[in-house]
Amino acid sequence: MAGQRIESHAGDIDRLLLESFLNCGARFLSGEDLSTAAQVSRTTVWKRIEALREHGFVFESVPSRGYRLAGLPDFLHPAAIAAGMKTGRLGKTLITYTETGSTNTAIARLGEEGAREGTVVLAESQFQGKGRLGRVWASPPGVNLYGSVLLRPPITPLDAPQLTFLSVVAVARTISSCTPLTPVIKWPNDILVNGRKVAGLLNEMTAETDRVTTVVLGFGVNLNMTLEQFPPELRHPAGSLLLEGGEPIDRICFTRRLLEELDGLYHQYLNGGYGAIREEWISLCGVIQRRVRVDDGGAPSREGVAVGIDENGALLLRRDDGRVESLYTGDVSLCG
Amino acid sequence: MAGQRIESHAGDIDRLLLESFLNCGARFLSGEDLSTAAQVSRTTVWKRIEALREHGFVFESVPSRGYRLAGLPDFLHPAAIAAGMKTGRLGKTLITYTETGSTNTAIARLGEEGAREGTVVLAESQFQGKGRLGRVWASPPGVNLYGSVLLRPPITPLDAPQLTFLSVVAVARTISSCTPLTPVIKWPNDILVNGRKVAGLLNEMTAETDRVTTVVLGFGVNLNMTLEQFPPELRHPAGSLLLEGGEPIDRICFTRRLLEELDGLYHQYLNGGYGAIREEWISLCGVIQRRVRVDDGGAPSREGVAVGIDENGALLLRRDDGRVESLYTGDVSLCG
Repeated sequence: MAGQRIESHAGDIDRLLLESFLNCGARFLSGEDLSTAAQVSRTTVWKRIEALREHGFVFESVPSRGYRLAGLPDFLHPAAIAAGMKTGRLGKTLITYTETGSTNTAIARLGEEGAREGTVVLAESQFQGKGRLGRVWASPPGVNLYGSVLLRPPITPLDAPQLTFLSVVAVARTISSCTPLTPVIKWPNDILVNGRKVAGLLNEMTAETDRVTTVVLGFGVNLNMTLEQFPPELRHPAGSLLLEGGEPIDRICFTRRLLEELDGLYHQYLNGGYGAIREEWISLCGVIQRRVRVDDGGAPSREGVAVGIDENGALLLRRDDGRVESLYTGDVSLCG
Repeated sequence: MAGQRIESHAGDIDRLLLESFLNCGARFLSGEDLSTAAQVSRTTVWKRIEALREHGFVFESVPSRGYRLAGLPDFLHPAAIAAGMKTGRLGKTLITYTETGSTNTAIARLGEEGAREGTVVLAESQFQGKGRLGRVWASPPGVNLYGSVLLRPPITPLDAPQLTFLSVVAVARTISSCTPLTPVIKWPNDILVNGRKVAGLLNEMTAETDRVTTVVLGFGVNLNMTLEQFPPELRHPAGSLLLEGGEPIDRICFTRRLLEELDGLYHQYLNGGYGAIREEWISLCGVIQRRVRVDDGGAPSREGVAVGIDENGALLLRRDDGRVESLYTGDVSLCG
C-alpha cells in the first residue's frame, strides 16, 4: 500500500459503522441496525464492510444475526482511531499515509491550503522523518506512531514554545496510561523510559510578527520497534515501549488516547493558560534540581543546576557563580 | 509580460555587462572591453545586449566606438538592480516576477526548497498582496515596489520580532536618502509621510521551538502610485512618495538602496545585536511620548502614553493608573 492516503472525516460512514460496533461490545448487529446508525442503505453497509475487510478489519457475519467486529487491523486506520474518540477540536479530519516524507511536512502543506484546526496526519512510515535541529528520526514501517496535529491558536509567536510542553505532557500521560512504564521528560522535547529515548516531539510554527498562523505538533513514539530496527549510531540510547515493557502496544488505542490527551490539554491551555501544564511538566522532568551539562553546538557547553523552566519554555540553569541563565536550545545530559 | 520570471545571480553575464557600463560613466565601451569584463565571446556580448534591449534597456551603438548604456527600463529588472549594488549577503540571487500572488508567498516556497539566505523576490504587481493580520495590500502594476527577502538567522523565535524593526528602519532610511521627505514610523510596521501610509512591512517566519528556520522580510512601498490607483476604502489614509513629494521615484535606484540598507542593518544585527537599531527606530517613531489608543480587534481598546518598545518589539503603554503594559499586536492611533 505504498504511498496510499486514507482520509476519515467526522460523520463519515466508516466512522459511524465502527462506532456502532464499538458501542455494542461483542454483540452482533443486523444490517438493519447498521443501516439506521449510518443512515445509508443496507447495500452500502455491505459494501463498506467489504472495503474495511480489505483494510484488515475482521468481521464475523452470521446470516440470521448480522455482523460482529472481531478484530482491528494492525494499521493506523483513521476511522478505527476516530471511532469512539472523545475529542472536541482534534481529529475531525484524520488522514493516514502508508508512507510520506514526514508528517510535519505533509500537514504544513495542508495548513497552507487552509486545512482546519485539529486536522491530524499519521503515517505508517516516513522516508524523511525529522528530529529537532534538522536531525533524522528513524521511521521504520508498521511498528511505531508518527503523527502531526495542525493548530491555529490565537497567540503571539512569543507564546508558541509553550505548546511544546503541552505535547510532551500529552505523550507522557499516554505512556503512563497505556503501559506500566514511567516516562521521564528530557528537556526540551524528548521522553525517556529507563534512560532510553522512546519519544520525540517536533513542533514547528509559521507566524507573522505579532500573531501565529499555524503550529504543527509533531510526535514520533517508538511503540513496537525491535532492536534490529534502530540505526547503528544514535546520539542518545533509544528504546521502544515494547523493548522496555515487554508487551506489544495496541497502536490504534495508543494513538486515540494520545489525541484525546492533546485535545484536553489544548482546551485547558486556551481557557486556563499554561500554568498547570508547566507544573505537570516539571513534575515529570528528570533534570530539575539535578546537575546538568547543556551543549548547544557552537559555544562551549555550560554546566549548572537545572532549577526550572520559565514561561517561554526556557530551561533555567543556575551556574556555579549563582547567576541563573535562560537557555532556549541545546542537548542536556546529567553530570557525573 | 504577465507571469514572467526573470532571475539574476551573482556573476551572471548581464550583471557583469551592466556593471561595466555603470562603472564607466557615460563612456562608450568596445565589444572587446565588454567581452573581457564578462569573460564571454563578443558574439555572446552582442546577443545579451540585444536581449537586454528587449527588456527596455537603451543602448547606443556606434560602429567604431562600441556601446553606451543610455537608459534603464522602468521595470524592476534584477540585473539592473544588482549592477553596482554593495551588499554582502543580500541579492546574490534576485528574482523579479512580472506578476505573482504575493512576494512573501513566492519566497516562502523557495525557502522550503532550500533557497539560500539573502535571496530576494520582487514583483511588478501582486494579485494577492498581503498586509498585516490577513489584510489586503493594494498592488497595482509598474508603479511601486513589492518585494521579499529570505533570511536564515541563527536566532530563536523569541528574537524574530526584532527583525521587523530592522526592516522598518531600512525603509525609513531609504526614503530619507532618496527623497526630501520625512518618514515617520507607525508601530508596529507602517511608515507614514505627512500622516499618510506610504509603506508597510510584513515579516513572516517558520520556526521550530528553539530555532528559526526562515524569516521573510516583506515590504510594500508606494513609490509612483497615483490617487486613482488607490482602492476606494482604506483603513488609514494612504499616499505615495510621488504624491507627497511631487517627484517620480527611480524604482531601480530605490530598490538597490533599500537592499543595501537592509544588508547593512542585518550585518549589524548579527554582529552587534539589536540595541542601536532599536534606538534609531525610537527616534523615527511618531508615537513615543504621545497619548495613543491601541485597538487589538477583540478586547476594548486601550489608551495610554506610548513610552517605548521592549527588546521583543512590544509597544510599552503606560496606562493612566501607572501600570506599563507590553502590547504585541494592534492598531495604534494618536488621541485627541
